[in-house]
Amino acid sequence: MPAIVDTLSLERHILTTIPLARAMELHVAEYDGHRLALAASGAANVNDKGCAFGGSLASLATLAGWGLICLKLGELGISADVFVQDSTIVYLEPVWDEIVAEAAAAPDESWEHFVSSIRARGRARITIDAEVAAAEGGSVPARITARFVAKRTDQPSPD
Amino acid sequence: MPAIVDTLSLERHILTTIPLARAMELHVAEYDGHRLALAASGAANVNDKGCAFGGSLASLATLAGWGLICLKLGELGISADVFVQDSTIVYLEPVWDEIVAEAAAAPDESWEHFVSSIRARGRARITIDAEVAAAEGGSVPARITARFVAKRTDQPSPD
Repeated sequence: MPAIVDTLSLERHILTTIPLARAMELHVAEYDGHRLALAASGAANVNDKGCAFGGSLASLATLAGWGLICLKLGELGISADVFVQDSTIVYLEPVWDEIVAEAAAAPDESWEHFVSSIRARGRARITIDAEVAAAEGGSVPARITARFVAKRTDQPSPD
Repeated sequence: MPAIVDTLSLERHILTTIPLARAMELHVAEYDGHRLALAASGAANVNDKGCAFGGSLASLATLAGWGLICLKLGELGISADVFVQDSTIVYLEPVWDEIVAEAAAAPDESWEHFVSSIRARGRARITIDAEVAAAEGGSVPARITARFVAKRTDQPSPD
């Protein structure tokens, strides 16, 4: 895949290769080097009750975690395929507006360990926590924890 | 919401109220009174690797569970809002073709108990298991377990 080295190339990569992300009207909202926030249109992601569709929340949060890992690796010049392995999502409240999902490494994870592992073994795993935030107010309508695996593609794995 | 009494009204309800389901090119594949299978186009749901996007698998499986509950209630003339509370999905293999997600009540659940509970209390919970099936071959590329709550809307809850 093309190099993802910043939020612009990440957003372009997602929108050009994942039709559902285009349908969700996804865009990168914020990135500070540790947390990546993706946003999606409220109108494009409604369900039959007029609030956000659960599948959209899960998709946006999963993509936020996936994108965060791609960015961290891309910044270091490491090419890798990143896959989600499993995830758990808890829906707490409806979202009535634009959806924002903010992803960060889980508290017991370390990017240093992840990067040294993929450098040494060609693959590494990391758990990402994501929160779906309401556009207004401080509530957290959904929380997701997802485990990802990254497999280096720019050099053969020593395994 | 309009009465969902059969697979035709279910499919129409989903496609007219959930834009993302239209983008996924979702349709009802099969229903035998206990298991509901929903299908979605391979092309509309690809990711950057050319296989099915994880968010599409999660969305289709969640909708299959939601739709199954709506059908079971609709057949009995019970009007209810059905919400997903939480779900866990495990991604085992990529899907390279049309996606099919088949949902059924979890083994330790009982529709009789669910229906008697919503009749008595105006609300009820049920856990649904769904499998994402490969269009060809017997593999199961993803499994999801989701808990749903249904709240009766055609009469006040006695709570």
